[in-house]
Amino acid sequence: MRRVLKQAEKQRQSDEPRLKIIPLGGLEQIGMNMTVFEYDDSIIVVDCGLAFPSDDMLGIDLVIPDITYLKDNIQKVKGFVITHGHEDHIGALPYVLQELNVPIYATKLTMGIIEHKLKERGMTRSTKRKVMKYGQSVNLGCFRVEFIRTNHSIADAAAFAIFTPVGTIVHTGDFKIDYTPVFGDPVDLPRFAELGKKGVLALMADSTNAIREGFTMSERAVGRTFDRLFEENKDRRIIVATFASNVDRVQQIINSSYKYGRKVVVEGRSMVNIIGIANELGYIQIPDGTLVDISQLNNYPLEKTVLITTGSQGESMAALSRMAADIHKKVSISANDAIIFSSTPIPGNEKAVAQVINELSAKGAKVIFQDTHVSGHACKEDLKLIYSLVKPRFALPVHGEYRHLMAQSEIAQEMGVPKDNVFIMRSGNVMELSEDSAQITGNVTAGPVLVDGLGVGDVGNIVLRDRQNLAQNGIIIVVLTLDRKGNQLMAGPDIVSRGFVYVRESENLMEEAHAVVEEAVWKCLDKRVSDWGKIKSVIRDSLSDYIWKKMKRNPMILPIIMEI
Amino acid sequence: MRRVLKQAEKQRQSDEPRLKIIPLGGLEQIGMNMTVFEYDDSIIVVDCGLAFPSDDMLGIDLVIPDITYLKDNIQKVKGFVITHGHEDHIGALPYVLQELNVPIYATKLTMGIIEHKLKERGMTRSTKRKVMKYGQSVNLGCFRVEFIRTNHSIADAAAFAIFTPVGTIVHTGDFKIDYTPVFGDPVDLPRFAELGKKGVLALMADSTNAIREGFTMSERAVGRTFDRLFEENKDRRIIVATFASNVDRVQQIINSSYKYGRKVVVEGRSMVNIIGIANELGYIQIPDGTLVDISQLNNYPLEKTVLITTGSQGESMAALSRMAADIHKKVSISANDAIIFSSTPIPGNEKAVAQVINELSAKGAKVIFQDTHVSGHACKEDLKLIYSLVKPRFALPVHGEYRHLMAQSEIAQEMGVPKDNVFIMRSGNVMELSEDSAQITGNVTAGPVLVDGLGVGDVGNIVLRDRQNLAQNGIIIVVLTLDRKGNQLMAGPDIVSRGFVYVRESENLMEEAHAVVEEAVWKCLDKRVSDWGKIKSVIRDSLSDYIWKKMKRNPMILPIIMEI
Repeated sequence: MRRVLKQAEKQRQSDEPRLKIIPLGGLEQIGMNMTVFEYDDSIIVVDCGLAFPSDDMLGIDLVIPDITYLKDNIQKVKGFVITHGHEDHIGALPYVLQELNVPIYATKLTMGIIEHKLKERGMTRSTKRKVMKYGQSVNLGCFRVEFIRTNHSIADAAAFAIFTPVGTIVHTGDFKIDYTPVFGDPVDLPRFAELGKKGVLALMADSTNAIREGFTMSERAVGRTFDRLFEENKDRRIIVATFASNVDRVQQIINSSYKYGRKVVVEGRSMVNIIGIANELGYIQIPDGTLVDISQLNNYPLEKTVLITTGSQGESMAALSRMAADIHKKVSISANDAIIFSSTPIPGNEKAVAQVINELSAKGAKVIFQDTHVSGHACKEDLKLIYSLVKPRFALPVHGEYRHLMAQSEIAQEMGVPKDNVFIMRSGNVMELSEDSAQITGNVTAGPVLVDGLGVGDVGNIVLRDRQNLAQNGIIIVVLTLDRKGNQLMAGPDIVSRGFVYVRESENLMEEAHAVVEEAVWKCLDKRVSDWGKIKSVIRDSLSDYIWKKMKRNPMILPIIMEI
Repeated sequence: MRRVLKQAEKQRQSDEPRLKIIPLGGLEQIGMNMTVFEYDDSIIVVDCGLAFPSDDMLGIDLVIPDITYLKDNIQKVKGFVITHGHEDHIGALPYVLQELNVPIYATKLTMGIIEHKLKERGMTRSTKRKVMKYGQSVNLGCFRVEFIRTNHSIADAAAFAIFTPVGTIVHTGDFKIDYTPVFGDPVDLPRFAELGKKGVLALMADSTNAIREGFTMSERAVGRTFDRLFEENKDRRIIVATFASNVDRVQQIINSSYKYGRKVVVEGRSMVNIIGIANELGYIQIPDGTLVDISQLNNYPLEKTVLITTGSQGESMAALSRMAADIHKKVSISANDAIIFSSTPIPGNEKAVAQVINELSAKGAKVIFQDTHVSGHACKEDLKLIYSLVKPRFALPVHGEYRHLMAQSEIAQEMGVPKDNVFIMRSGNVMELSEDSAQITGNVTAGPVLVDGLGVGDVGNIVLRDRQNLAQNGIIIVVLTLDRKGNQLMAGPDIVSRGFVYVRESENLMEEAHAVVEEAVWKCLDKRVSDWGKIKSVIRDSLSDYIWKKMKRNPMILPIIMEI
């Protein structure tokens, strides 16, 4: 009897809908953050970010998450809740909204940046948007999402308390703990504590800096360094390169400029955009007369000016890189410049940054590369603080590569979350939670969708593999015209190559290659081979063998047969 | 009269041969070190290194210096003197010796590594070689070159005192100051002091770490960390990834292994080679029975074994990367492994290294990435020590990018070398020195020669530009057959693309593209255009316009016209 009851209980439990958490990106990588929360007939999506292409994605402009799962469940989707205005959290919106037109909820600055993006594409009218304040909640289907104040390297960042039928989920977004932020108030730690006291089912926290010991410094620490550097470089023009979206950093540079009586020019399209939005919305204070247009730069003595510019990552088309390469229309670098990199290179950008430094140094400029950057992400001890306040039953680390997620999972265990309650998820995993259980129960379609020019998803693995092959070895094209009936060679074979060798300096080689191809063609025609696929493969094999033997190279070989 | 004398004196001076120092590589970059010293009818060359291709050198295997100047003066060239056995100092020898067969002078281990290279190419018999000891000199034409003991991240590194008719040049090679080296004795500072006392005309010192404050730690410091890590990881297999050529590092790992009763396997082709050579020549002490073959690995308990392996830079084909990717034939990674990266990522390799760490972590392995590497290059304070001993009249910093050379030039000035006596040279510069003057008087051909497979120099800028274009956008080939006489279209136009789009998913696009091309061809034929170059350019322009308008992409478009 008891057993029967138990079984009935089990049955009841498995019939009950559970909370599904499905990351569609943001794991195994920094970038492309997007997480689905689903319960019964309600879906909400946290963030909608892009990723920058990895080195093997040749020619790709950017990468967005695969939203097949959302399209398949479109009638359930109630809206996007956005944590903050960085590209890896909002950058896919213009693409995704075209297929999934649902409302967006975000704080004021975040929404300002999103609106700018939509405006560029004429999408503002078609998209419903609601600006949220910290402490405010929104009901979306069976969910309620509360916006909680955090700190980050962009203002107006939010964490979420997501109230679900099975319990509360806390999602930190990207965050740091800054007791003395440049703009606004410190992260709302009391609210995290309150939620923790009431009981939190799961914590999804930022793993970016989980491998780094200690605490993350306050953004304000950087301001003191700027003052010192402005003091030390009174006789030079000062150029500061930093991240376009770090409004607080720009604020501090403006503060030092004002203090030392310098005019400020902001340069670089993305920075001009974001500072414009921040200024309009009141997220930055610029003393009257401090900001001048770049066209007025020459009206002031060099040592009374400051340029704040993009290009701190060595991006080839950014303003600083153009100045370094002497192709910037309005700024030339000289020995009278002190150039401050207010940034650290993102992994992968080190060589590009070094290149820019070399070019700037070669023009005699003083390049300063220290103490003017702090991270926007919580380090180990900060994460411990969050765990100690939120006391989650389950830990689901987000935002990072495997090693980052792994590092946070160790922190979670140190902070008392049982090992079995810590999950390292992968994109596409379906995590099902009840009030007292969590498990990965399956997978949905997930992965990168490549954007190349206006094409979204039309470049896939085969095209990329071709591009890699073309990049490494170039292409040899063999064309010939055959008479289908007579099986006769009417024209060619002609050989054309691109990206292979200097033809002029390799005349012998190309002549021999031609002979090899001709022999292959004649052999086929003599044998009356009428399957053109076969002829092509004979051409490909013999030419490829010859080139490998002769040069140890593997160009792509593309025989084209025309028919008369 | 006095004036006439002065002029005669001037004339005499300018007629006197001067010492020419011509760097053919190694400046503006880390790699490709090669410096020519010329006086009258004598030339000697210090080092003969390769560089690894930069990111934009698609498909290139390696890069060697342009030796046109040496070939043009082949009768003067007396030999190569080599500072140490790293690729960026010896790697171009197999290529250069084929065109310039002169003797090589190097210390024992350095020569052992060179000989291995020559043996692989069957070049040992044709090349004269002489092993040099520290303190020994060799006369080469009007030069005498003395080998001076230094320390570096490979044993048997040498600095040179080059005695020339106009004075003594000290070339440090790559060096650090290690008072407690793992093998051999500390750098011969007394000899540097002695030379300085007698008077040194110019110092050419290693700039790699001139941007780093302080002193470089002794290699021995790493040994203590290994002991601690071995103690802490008694229950796991230990895998240590490091640079193949760092024999002293391998020695210390073997020491710890022996101490903790573990068997050692060396894995990775380049490491097996170099450790083999070092062992044969007595540069490494391996206790009997410690080293075992990889095939015997499974005969011992996991926690009683150590693997020393290549792949610390995330190189895709290196042993550790293959283990991480689960494609190593003999080693599988598990939660029982502790993997120590005894290295720091070389700029540009950070992402590849992170990838390997992620893969290893995902297999449950413990990845340790700290305190087990010290640099092989002198930091700022070490350089100051060398300047204080050598007291050169002129400073010619070498081995580094512009920012490194710049940093050393500041050190030189701090140490009392007048600003006008410090030169930042560029590859190809001809620096002329007399007993009391130095100036750059001209340039010779210099630059990178690209090696792709067996081809040396047959890939140049045009080919690389094509490869970059192909990599970014792919290629569209348009073929058609025309009858020359009748100006008639006999076959085609056919369109084939590679690396552009998935043709199946872009059928409409390709159909429209076909229509665009057909229209262009017909327009030409209707107008009786008989210049095929013109027809090609009409095809290219119209297709390119269409694709840009439609997709914002710029594939390479290659029209091929066949003639009947």
